[in-house]
Amino acid sequence: MNKRICWLLAIPFVSVFLDLLPASGQEAQVKLSDATEACLSCHSLYSQGIVKDWQQSRHARTTVRQAVEKPDKERRVSLQALEDARIASADVAVGCAECHLLDPKLHEDTFPHNGHEVHVVVSPPDCAHCHPAERTQYLNQNKMSRAHGNLAGNPVYRSLGDTVLGVKRVAGRGLTISPPSEATQMEACYGCHGTEVKVRGLKKLNTPMDPIDVPDLAGWPNTGVGRVNPDGSLGSCSACHARHSFSIALAREPQTCGQCHVEPDVPAWNVYRNSRHGNLYASRKGAWDLDAVPWRLGRDFGAPTCATCHASLVVDAEGAVLFQRTHGFGERLWVRLFGLIYSHPQPIDPDTAKIRNQAGLPLPVTYEGEAASSFLIPPEEQTRRRMSMMTLCQGCHSTQWAALHFEKLAGTLRDVDEMVRQATLLMQEAWAEGLASRDNPFDEVLEMLWVEAWLFHANSIRFTSAMAGSADYAAFHGGWWGLSKSILGLHQAIAVKRSMPAERP
Amino acid sequence: MNKRICWLLAIPFVSVFLDLLPASGQEAQVKLSDATEACLSCHSLYSQGIVKDWQQSRHARTTVRQAVEKPDKERRVSLQALEDARIASADVAVGCAECHLLDPKLHEDTFPHNGHEVHVVVSPPDCAHCHPAERTQYLNQNKMSRAHGNLAGNPVYRSLGDTVLGVKRVAGRGLTISPPSEATQMEACYGCHGTEVKVRGLKKLNTPMDPIDVPDLAGWPNTGVGRVNPDGSLGSCSACHARHSFSIALAREPQTCGQCHVEPDVPAWNVYRNSRHGNLYASRKGAWDLDAVPWRLGRDFGAPTCATCHASLVVDAEGAVLFQRTHGFGERLWVRLFGLIYSHPQPIDPDTAKIRNQAGLPLPVTYEGEAASSFLIPPEEQTRRRMSMMTLCQGCHSTQWAALHFEKLAGTLRDVDEMVRQATLLMQEAWAEGLASRDNPFDEVLEMLWVEAWLFHANSIRFTSAMAGSADYAAFHGGWWGLSKSILGLHQAIAVKRSMPAERP
Amino acid sequence: MNKRICWLLAIPFVSVFLDLLPASGQEAQVKLSDATEACLSCHSLYSQGIVKDWQQSRHARTTVRQAVEKPDKERRVSLQALEDARIASADVAVGCAECHLLDPKLHEDTFPHNGHEVHVVVSPPDCAHCHPAERTQYLNQNKMSRAHGNLAGNPVYRSLGDTVLGVKRVAGRGLTISPPSEATQMEACYGCHGTEVKVRGLKKLNTPMDPIDVPDLAGWPNTGVGRVNPDGSLGSCSACHARHSFSIALAREPQTCGQCHVEPDVPAWNVYRNSRHGNLYASRKGAWDLDAVPWRLGRDFGAPTCATCHASLVVDAEGAVLFQRTHGFGERLWVRLFGLIYSHPQPIDPDTAKIRNQAGLPLPVTYEGEAASSFLIPPEEQTRRRMSMMTLCQGCHSTQWAALHFEKLAGTLRDVDEMVRQATLLMQEAWAEGLASRDNPFDEVLEMLWVEAWLFHANSIRFTSAMAGSADYAAFHGGWWGLSKSILGLHQAIAVKRSMPAERP
Repeated sequence: MNKRICWLLAIPFVSVFLDLLPASGQEAQVKLSDATEACLSCHSLYSQGIVKDWQQSRHARTTVRQAVEKPDKERRVSLQALEDARIASADVAVGCAECHLLDPKLHEDTFPHNGHEVHVVVSPPDCAHCHPAERTQYLNQNKMSRAHGNLAGNPVYRSLGDTVLGVKRVAGRGLTISPPSEATQMEACYGCHGTEVKVRGLKKLNTPMDPIDVPDLAGWPNTGVGRVNPDGSLGSCSACHARHSFSIALAREPQTCGQCHVEPDVPAWNVYRNSRHGNLYASRKGAWDLDAVPWRLGRDFGAPTCATCHASLVVDAEGAVLFQRTHGFGERLWVRLFGLIYSHPQPIDPDTAKIRNQAGLPLPVTYEGEAASSFLIPPEEQTRRRMSMMTLCQGCHSTQWAALHFEKLAGTLRDVDEMVRQATLLMQEAWAEGLASRDNPFDEVLEMLWVEAWLFHANSIRFTSAMAGSADYAAFHGGWWGLSKSILGLHQAIAVKRSMPAERP
Repeated sequence: MNKRICWLLAIPFVSVFLDLLPASGQEAQVKLSDATEACLSCHSLYSQGIVKDWQQSRHARTTVRQAVEKPDKERRVSLQALEDARIASADVAVGCAECHLLDPKLHEDTFPHNGHEVHVVVSPPDCAHCHPAERTQYLNQNKMSRAHGNLAGNPVYRSLGDTVLGVKRVAGRGLTISPPSEATQMEACYGCHGTEVKVRGLKKLNTPMDPIDVPDLAGWPNTGVGRVNPDGSLGSCSACHARHSFSIALAREPQTCGQCHVEPDVPAWNVYRNSRHGNLYASRKGAWDLDAVPWRLGRDFGAPTCATCHASLVVDAEGAVLFQRTHGFGERLWVRLFGLIYSHPQPIDPDTAKIRNQAGLPLPVTYEGEAASSFLIPPEEQTRRRMSMMTLCQGCHSTQWAALHFEKLAGTLRDVDEMVRQATLLMQEAWAEGLASRDNPFDEVLEMLWVEAWLFHANSIRFTSAMAGSADYAAFHGGWWGLSKSILGLHQAIAVKRSMPAERP
Repeated sequence: MNKRICWLLAIPFVSVFLDLLPASGQEAQVKLSDATEACLSCHSLYSQGIVKDWQQSRHARTTVRQAVEKPDKERRVSLQALEDARIASADVAVGCAECHLLDPKLHEDTFPHNGHEVHVVVSPPDCAHCHPAERTQYLNQNKMSRAHGNLAGNPVYRSLGDTVLGVKRVAGRGLTISPPSEATQMEACYGCHGTEVKVRGLKKLNTPMDPIDVPDLAGWPNTGVGRVNPDGSLGSCSACHARHSFSIALAREPQTCGQCHVEPDVPAWNVYRNSRHGNLYASRKGAWDLDAVPWRLGRDFGAPTCATCHASLVVDAEGAVLFQRTHGFGERLWVRLFGLIYSHPQPIDPDTAKIRNQAGLPLPVTYEGEAASSFLIPPEEQTRRRMSMMTLCQGCHSTQWAALHFEKLAGTLRDVDEMVRQATLLMQEAWAEGLASRDNPFDEVLEMLWVEAWLFHANSIRFTSAMAGSADYAAFHGGWWGLSKSILGLHQAIAVKRSMPAERP
């Protein structure tokens, strides 16, 4: 079938497609650009799932002009004036062409396709035409935008990743570890952190019509939060606003965050799901409005999801703004629960690969517990952020409830960090005695026990405390049971090692 | 802003608030007491999430009179006659004041607040003004009401808790264990079991208006099932009927129970969630009515949630009562699956701290498997309860199906208990040989393996069997795999210990 | 109460029952057979949950004639001509009698009951009266139909099961393992794989009316996928289409599959639940139509559930068939992810117990990695199936996206299988040195570490890769962390064993 026939065939389908648009007042009248109609003429046949997804999106029923002209608190775009948008038309729906044809010269993955210069990977700078504040906040304040480089560019974290993901091979009485394959890295660490998407050239693709040449992409497919895109930009908006409905409701669903933030290392989703908040979400979500902008506390939702505390514009019943929308996510985070290897104040800069602690390691705290303070937010900023979070808590809890909750958190962090310190003392003893080699601190059984202490069990307790999670995640489900078992197990394993002269290097 | 201004400002908001009440017939006409209106005048601005939650509750749309006058099976209160209630008015909604101002002299946490004597912690005796039967059943029949004391007052369990939660510190070649901090105890064991809430005095609190003096509470916030309240009472109704909607529907949601009853130690929620029953709940809940009273089998719900078998008033299609509501929860429980260290008949008294087995330990069974029978329900009561549960099963299953199901359970418990017995024999050998010290039976690696056998893996199998859970929870997900690995691991660890002369004490 | 009284009492209830039928046009007029009315006369009192469940089913509102006469793509029966059905009437609802009275002589569990010859266990041949293609596909193409025999008839798998489920007993300084009990086998392996249901004779059953004699069944209750029924047939349709609503929607719910396919050994459900697909399902299911036949991509559902890719009739927006319904489930599966002990091409025959690899073991691959090719699908069939799956992916993803996804899978399987090979080399070393005994390859700690490598952690990575699951299931949640810990742990445990002369046999 050649292209002209396809166009002819397409006409009835486009009509069908237009019929499908929801008839909800003004928004149903939205015109499509000619270019988008051309895309749809074929792609409503091929990749129709994408088209259907988009059809159900707000993008399909809104023009940029309508979006910009909404009352301030109802706006879903941060673009202030139409002329700033650098878009072809403000009076058509935001369709295929409006994103995939933007700034073709900036995208290394642009290829000619049926008379258009299409790029495959729509990137944050594309979205920023209408959502500039979100892109800027995400890039400049959110560690997630740097998730690729913060891992790939940090020798310690990278060594952990390479050690875990590399194939171990028997070599005499020892084991060697090969560097991990591209596939395995994409599957594991960079699945969430984001790959580096590179254009390797063009490749011929057989399609239901003529064969076409498309960019041959490495590191693809991937929607990791810190993806390095072919235009050099960082991040993937579709990590949370999944393709192609770009839904704010989806980004407010806690399980969206749960795609990456799962136990044992970042158990936020698991802890939330079994918490009172998570229970209320699961039990009552059907009566909530996760799509509302602004998001009204107590009306549109009855308990926080992740987005409530970390991202969304929240207003009270009278419409007064309780919190401004932020894509920085750290606005109300003072302490970084995620132990590296201890909890510590949030980093100042989202680029954490440049942190060096007093021991010269790219870690925010030394093994002895001294924080790399010059890279971390100072006490007054910590206080400001904690007070900001407390204000949100007070939407549903008394002042004392909220204050004591965070007092308890502080106590818990002290205990947990102290336990990690003791596990580290044992590990340092083992290194000093030659029972394990510090050259690679992650490739021996003793070291894995130590890592589990601070990366798995301590985090389980920390997140449980911060998020008022199910107490069992601090007790027996990982938690203190796991942390205690790690340190007793490490202690015991060291004793066994000591009694095995033949095993010493 | 001072209080008078606040009152003036409040007037339009109260009007707004009244508008919000759902207009569902008679119930929408419910008046608020003056005291409650006073509370709302400020708190619909501050802590508005609480107010919204309450507004959506039945309490906000019902008077005590209306509740009492309902037909018997539709009643949600057990109060029989209005004059027994000792409440100010039976003709106003059950608002803030109706609970937080009750019996001020009985509550040690009562404080003067804007001309009222308010207490912070609403306790079961407060709820009992309208729900006396529920309170009495919960207190006298339900082990959960004693969850604090049953742990804190039992030297064995307390020692387990203290050992797990205490910070372990390196001391020479050994480890010491400090007593756990207040924060960590609240976070872990007492998060579910309930804290002891004590008034430490008053403290100054900065509010958006004048600073106020409020009770300074220890052990707060907490909604554990066995919370010891400032009035000396036991329990927290909001553990299941969460604040401030006090919903019966929420208490019937299985994930409400799942806030505490999670793997690995009490895996009821996990087992349920992956069971046929749990699947039907998750798949069809949208078409069920979890709020209906009475709860009609096959109409309002198509598969049991936790509440169906353990608590709710269930009727058949003709309205005939299949089961009376009970807050005792043990009504249809004959065997206690939760191994301590073996399964055993349910205790007679919810206060289990007073149990002493033949070895003098505060455990319902000796390590050798002999039950402390005088503290446990006798065989005829076990039979009565099993038959009662079977009747419920027969609502949806044939007589034979139900009978064989529980026959299988009996066989499974025998096998699992026997495996625990063998693990205990190994442990006793290790204690006898001095490979571990019995002084604290929970603080060594060997002992943790033993504990995991009876507390984690055995329970996974027991709950799976009883609740017809996903077979993998009896096989590889914990289950027999874990139980086998525990006993083989313990056996192996003992062998290693024996070969390490230097490690022996 | 005797039977005649029961019949009289029943009349009003049957009327009530008829009232309950949903009045949705033609379907509401469906007549019941006399026999079914007789069943209902008692069973709408006793086992009313079953009756209610059935009343909400399509069976209760459709006759066979109506079902057969539907347009082709809307048909839910594969019966082509009414005369092939061998049923009493094509013009009554499919009620109790229409299934439980079918072919009484073929069912060993048939018993006389109120004048009818009733059998307890409705089996696939019963369902095949109207659903012949489904039964045939399931039997001849689906490994699940052979799940009982594929386990019970394979000496290696059976030995694994017996070792895990058998009670371990202390015997001197060793441990012995008893054969597992009937109860425990039903609870664990055969809970999902299916039991062999046998008639042991008759037994007297006390009912609310006269005592009755019913078949005394062994291996009952059970709804495992490969159940061996009293009529000798294989499978239990209600494993997925749960009793007695027989819902296609339920079978399309991913948690239905999740009753058995859970971590750690077959983590399909867990991986799915935390994937993007699973997130879309959980977040948007309320707006989907899981009951629609045909199932329209992008309209009735916006992301695949298990059934989408493995079973359902899927059409595009124009009604063109993308995939035919299949109960074979392997139609689009080329590689068997489930490691035994390596991933391998799908078996040709669903009866896998007859496979013998080059080492003579009943495994599809040797320990060295050589596939038993004559029992496995050849490369061209693998390609055909992979292309078929890719076509489905392309409903929502670009050609390149889909192609690179499966390229990544191939790379990941290579890495994972290589790691399993190395773990196996270590295990073989240990066997060769006498550090473990190969007689039973599953009953020692070393061997359990090896099994966890290929059965738990490797599978977690494989399923994550294939199903685009949460990357953490390939990284730290089991995954590479677990796989690495297994091999390092095995290596270390072997070293410890070597240093313990007294432990060697």
